Amino acid sequence: MEENKKRGWFRKKKGTKNARPTHHNKPSHVEGKSGGKHFGGKKLRIIPLGGLEEVGKNIMALEYGDDIVIIDAGMSFAGPDMLGVDFIVPDISYLEARKKKIRGILFTHGHLDHIGAIQYVLPKLGNPPIYTNKLALGLIKNRLKEFALDKSAKLNLVNETSKLKLGAFDIEFFRVNHSIPNSMGVYLGTPVGNIVHTGDFKFDHSPAIDKPTDFQRIAEIGKKGIDVLMVDSTNALRPGFCKSEAEVAKTLEDIIEKTKGRLIIASFSSLIGRINQIVNFAAKNNRKVFLSGRSMINNVQLSEELGYSTYPKGTVRKLNAQANSLPPSQVLILTTGAQGETLSALTRMSIGEHSQIKIREGDTVVISASPIPGNELAVVNVINNLYAQGAKVITNNDMDIHVSGHAHQEELKLMYALIKPKCYVPIHGELYMRRGHIEMIKTVADPRMLATCLDNNGDVLEVSKQGIRKSKEKVPANDILVDGLGFGDIGSRVIQDRKIMSEDGIVVMLFHAYEESKRLISEPDILSRGFLYLKESEEIANEVKQVARKSFDQITQQNRKIGLKDLKKELERNISNFIRKRLRREPMIIPIIMYA
Amino acid sequence: MEENKKRGWFRKKKGTKNARPTHHNKPSHVEGKSGGKHFGGKKLRIIPLGGLEEVGKNIMALEYGDDIVIIDAGMSFAGPDMLGVDFIVPDISYLEARKKKIRGILFTHGHLDHIGAIQYVLPKLGNPPIYTNKLALGLIKNRLKEFALDKSAKLNLVNETSKLKLGAFDIEFFRVNHSIPNSMGVYLGTPVGNIVHTGDFKFDHSPAIDKPTDFQRIAEIGKKGIDVLMVDSTNALRPGFCKSEAEVAKTLEDIIEKTKGRLIIASFSSLIGRINQIVNFAAKNNRKVFLSGRSMINNVQLSEELGYSTYPKGTVRKLNAQANSLPPSQVLILTTGAQGETLSALTRMSIGEHSQIKIREGDTVVISASPIPGNELAVVNVINNLYAQGAKVITNNDMDIHVSGHAHQEELKLMYALIKPKCYVPIHGELYMRRGHIEMIKTVADPRMLATCLDNNGDVLEVSKQGIRKSKEKVPANDILVDGLGFGDIGSRVIQDRKIMSEDGIVVMLFHAYEESKRLISEPDILSRGFLYLKESEEIANEVKQVARKSFDQITQQNRKIGLKDLKKELERNISNFIRKRLRREPMIIPIIMYA
Repeated sequence: MEENKKRGWFRKKKGTKNARPTHHNKPSHVEGKSGGKHFGGKKLRIIPLGGLEEVGKNIMALEYGDDIVIIDAGMSFAGPDMLGVDFIVPDISYLEARKKKIRGILFTHGHLDHIGAIQYVLPKLGNPPIYTNKLALGLIKNRLKEFALDKSAKLNLVNETSKLKLGAFDIEFFRVNHSIPNSMGVYLGTPVGNIVHTGDFKFDHSPAIDKPTDFQRIAEIGKKGIDVLMVDSTNALRPGFCKSEAEVAKTLEDIIEKTKGRLIIASFSSLIGRINQIVNFAAKNNRKVFLSGRSMINNVQLSEELGYSTYPKGTVRKLNAQANSLPPSQVLILTTGAQGETLSALTRMSIGEHSQIKIREGDTVVISASPIPGNELAVVNVINNLYAQGAKVITNNDMDIHVSGHAHQEELKLMYALIKPKCYVPIHGELYMRRGHIEMIKTVADPRMLATCLDNNGDVLEVSKQGIRKSKEKVPANDILVDGLGFGDIGSRVIQDRKIMSEDGIVVMLFHAYEESKRLISEPDILSRGFLYLKESEEIANEVKQVARKSFDQITQQNRKIGLKDLKKELERNISNFIRKRLRREPMIIPIIMYA
Repeated sequence: MEENKKRGWFRKKKGTKNARPTHHNKPSHVEGKSGGKHFGGKKLRIIPLGGLEEVGKNIMALEYGDDIVIIDAGMSFAGPDMLGVDFIVPDISYLEARKKKIRGILFTHGHLDHIGAIQYVLPKLGNPPIYTNKLALGLIKNRLKEFALDKSAKLNLVNETSKLKLGAFDIEFFRVNHSIPNSMGVYLGTPVGNIVHTGDFKFDHSPAIDKPTDFQRIAEIGKKGIDVLMVDSTNALRPGFCKSEAEVAKTLEDIIEKTKGRLIIASFSSLIGRINQIVNFAAKNNRKVFLSGRSMINNVQLSEELGYSTYPKGTVRKLNAQANSLPPSQVLILTTGAQGETLSALTRMSIGEHSQIKIREGDTVVISASPIPGNELAVVNVINNLYAQGAKVITNNDMDIHVSGHAHQEELKLMYALIKPKCYVPIHGELYMRRGHIEMIKTVADPRMLATCLDNNGDVLEVSKQGIRKSKEKVPANDILVDGLGFGDIGSRVIQDRKIMSEDGIVVMLFHAYEESKRLISEPDILSRGFLYLKESEEIANEVKQVARKSFDQITQQNRKIGLKDLKKELERNISNFIRKRLRREPMIIPIIMYA
C-alpha cells in the first residue's frame, strides 16, 4: 500500500546507474508496484515463503539468475483452530521445482521457528549445504538425528567473521543478541542490490554468556550501502528498549538466594545463557540442579559438549529420586513446560501425575517465560493447579524473570540508523504487527525511503538496476500441516470434519435392508461418540431411531431405485434436521446401509 | 491454608459474646478450620457455588437456619478444552434439595456472569422472588423472555437505599461502580454475624452515566461491624488504581472528532454508559449511529426504554444500507464482536462475509475492549483480517480506549479500610488470583484479622457466635455443561470423545460375517472422518482393511464363541495399534459387526 503513495518520489530516471547510498543520498531506484513502466534486466527476487502471516515458520528465498540462497527453514505451532495438527512447515514447492539452483541454506540461529522444518526441507530440496554457527549447527544435528538425516547432511560451520560466495551472492554475517546464543544477521551482496536480513534480534549490552551486540560491525555492514533491510517485527508494537538478560539474572539470583524450600524453575530449553546462569547461582547456593524434560536435558548436554557451560562439572544431573530425598533447600529442578504444554513435566507435576516429583507445601515454582499467544489459558491452568498442590508460584507478572529476545521500538530505530537502507521490509510477525512496524518506520525514516509491506507469504519483492518493487506474482506458500508422521496428507476438509465432531460429536445410523424391496430387516441402530450419553438418553435415542426408520421408508417408497449415495444424503439431511430442532446440536451424521 | 497458621491468635475464650469490632478491636471470634473444639449454636453458612474456580458463573448461597438467600446466578463461557460446550451453569443441587428455605435471589448487576443462569436456576428452585435494580431487572426480563419464563417470574425492584428482611437476613445495598450502570454491593445482617459482598466493583469518581461510588454509604455499612467481607478478586494482581471511564470517553471523543473515514467501534453491549457517550459524540460530529449485533440492538433499546440514554432521539438505528451509501464521515457503526467471536458481526466484516457491510480502504475500526483470557488469538485474527481488507485498527494497546470494571489493588485496599471486616474472603477469580489477593491483604490488614481462601466452589464458611471457620464439608459444585438445549446431558466422557475425534478423527470399520462360523462374508469396509483423505491414501486404507480382516480372522479362529463386545474391543485395539505405529495418529476406532 505504502509504496503507491510515494511512487512519484521514487521513479527513477531511465538509465541511471544504481548509486550506492551515502548519508543523505536521495534514493533513486525504488518504484511502486503498479508502475506500468518497463522493468527489465536481471533481477534479485526476495521471496518470504513463511514468517509473514505468523510468528514462526520463518523461511526466505533469495533468487538471482541461476542462484538461490535460503535463509532459515522453521516450523510453527498450530493454532487451536488447527485441530490435531502437530505443527506446520512451509510450502517449498517453488523451491522444489528449482532445486538445482539452490546454493545453500543459511540459519540465523537455532530456534525451532528457524530450523524446525529442516527434516522436511532437506530431502525435498536435494540436500543442499547448510551454513550456520556452532550452537545452531549442534541443534540442527540433533534434530536431523531424530529423523536419521544427520549422516547425509552437508553441515558447514560459519561465524560472524565468515565470508561466503554462494553463486552470485556475497554473504557475510554479523552478531546480534537474541534469546539463544550465537544469533546472527546476514548480509547478502548481489550485482543489483545489497540485502540485510536481521534474523531475530535484540540489542543487549550485558547478555548471559553471549557477547554483546557488535555495533561497529553492523555500522560497517550499513556502510556497504544497503538496498533492502528485512527486519524483525515481533516486538515492533512495543515501545522503548527490551530489558537486558542481566536484569533477569539479578532477579533469579535473588530468588535462588532467598528461597528456603525446594525450587522448580520452568523456562525455554533454548535459553542456554539463562540456564547456565541459573545453574551457577544454584551451585553458589549449594543447590543441586536436576533437569527435567527431554529438550532441557538434550540442550544442556549439547551446551556442555560445545563448551557453552561455565558452571562446575557435575553440577547438573537428570531428575532422580534425590530431588525428593535431599533437604528442600538443596534442590533446584530445571524443567520444561513453561507454556503449559499438555504433556510437559511441569504440567504433569501440577496435576500430581509426574512419576518422580510430587509438589508439596513449601515448593516454589518460578515460571521464567511469558506465555506465547494462545497458551495463556494453559499456563493459568498450570499455575492454579500448582497452587492447589501447595506450591507458591512466581511469574513474570510478579518479578522481572523473563525478557523477550526481540527488539522493541527504540532498538529497531537504532538498527535502521546503523543500516540506513533504501527500502525497509518488516518480516517475522503477523500482518497487524508489520503494518504497525511500517507506521513506526515512517516516524523516523527519511520520507523518501520506502517501507514496503509484503502482506502475505509468497509475495515477491524484486530488486533490479531499475529499482525495487513488489511483484504482482504470487509464489505458492500454503501451510503444510503435519499430523503424526504425515506431511500434508490432511487438509482443510479433514480439519473441518474434526471441528464438527469436536463440537457435537458423531452419530452413526445403521440400516439393514433388503436390496430389492428396500424393506428394513430390523430397526435402524444408533451409535454415537461425543454426542450425548445415549444410555442416559434412551428417549432421544428412540426418537432418532424412529425418525431414521420413517425417513428410510419414505425415501425408498418414493423411489425404490434410489442410489446408495442419494439415499445416504437424504437420510443424513433428515436425521440432521431432526436433531438440530430437537437439541440445537449438529453432530456429524453417518448413515450406513447394509443390504441383505 | 492461611487460617491454620494463625489459629492461635484467633481462638476465642468460651462464652464470650460476639463483640462488634471497633477500630482496633482485637478480633475475638475467628477460628481455624481444624480446631477440634466444640463449635455449636446456630450457624450462618456461606457457600459459593460458583465464581471461585473461574472468572464467571458467580453464585453464592447464604444459609441461616431455615432461610437461604442467594446472591447472583451467573453463567460462564466454556474454555477451549470444553469442546462444543456453549456455556456452563452452576450446580445447584444443594439448593434444589432445600428449595423451601429459599427466600430470594439478589442480583448485584446485570452481566451474564451474574444473571446468565437464571433460566436454569428459577425453574429448579421453585421460582423464588428476585430482587435487583432497574437495569439488571430489565436485562433479566429480556433473558427470561427468551426462555418464556418472564410471565411467571417474581421480579422486585430495589435500589441502593432499599432495606429488605428476607427470613433471618436484614439486607441493604450500596452503590459501587462497574462496567455496567447500577452495580451494587450487598450487606446481609444475621444474628451471628454481618456479611458484606462487594459484587463486581471498582471506584470511579467520573463514571459514564452512573453516579460515582458513594464512599460515605460504604463507610456507614462498615460501621455496622462486618464479620466477613466477600471481595472481588478479578484484578487483585494489578497494582494501582483502575482508570476512570472518563479517560476512555476523552480518547474516544478525540478519535470520533479526528477520524475522517467511516468509523466502526466494537465494544461490549453491556457497557451502556460508554455506548451512550459514543452516541453523543457521534451526534455532535454529525455521524449517524448504526447498531450491529443482536445484543447491541437489544441493550441499546432497553437502555432507551429505561431512560439511561442521554442522546437526542433518533440518533441510532439498526444497521442498514445507508451505512454504505452515506459519506463515510457521517457513519459510525457500533457493533458486537470485540472478542473475536466466530459468528459476530465484526468477525464477519473482517472476512468479507457480512451481508451489509464491506470493509473498505479508509475505514477505521476501534476495538474498545480487552480480550478475555482465551480470546487473544481470535481477536488477533480479526485484526489481521481487518488490515487485510484495508481498514486501520485501533486497539487498547494503541490508546486508552478501554478500562476494566474491576478494582485494582489500591481500590481493594480502600474497600478494606472502609469496611474493616474481621475476615476477608476473596471471591470472583481463579485460585491463583485469590491466593495473590490474600498475599496483598496481608500487606495492609491488621495481622490479627483473618484472610481465608475458600479454594473451591462448594467450600463452606461457617459463622457462629463462636467464630468463623472453614467447614470440612463440601457441597456439590460441579460444572453443568450446556450444549444446545441440553443442560448437563453431556459430561466428561462425551467431551473426552470429542477431544479424541478433534485430534485424529474417527475410523469406522464395517465387518459383515456369518454369525455361526464367524466367517467374513466380504472384505471389511472402512469409512473415516477427520482422519485423512482416504481417497488420496488408498494404500493406507487397504493396509488398514487388511489388518482388520486378519485381526478378525485370528480373533474368531481362536475363539469362535467370542461375544460381540469382546470381539469389538480386540478389533479396536489391533486396528488402533496398527494406525498408531503406521502414522503416529490415534483416531477413534469403531468396529461395527453385522451378522448374517
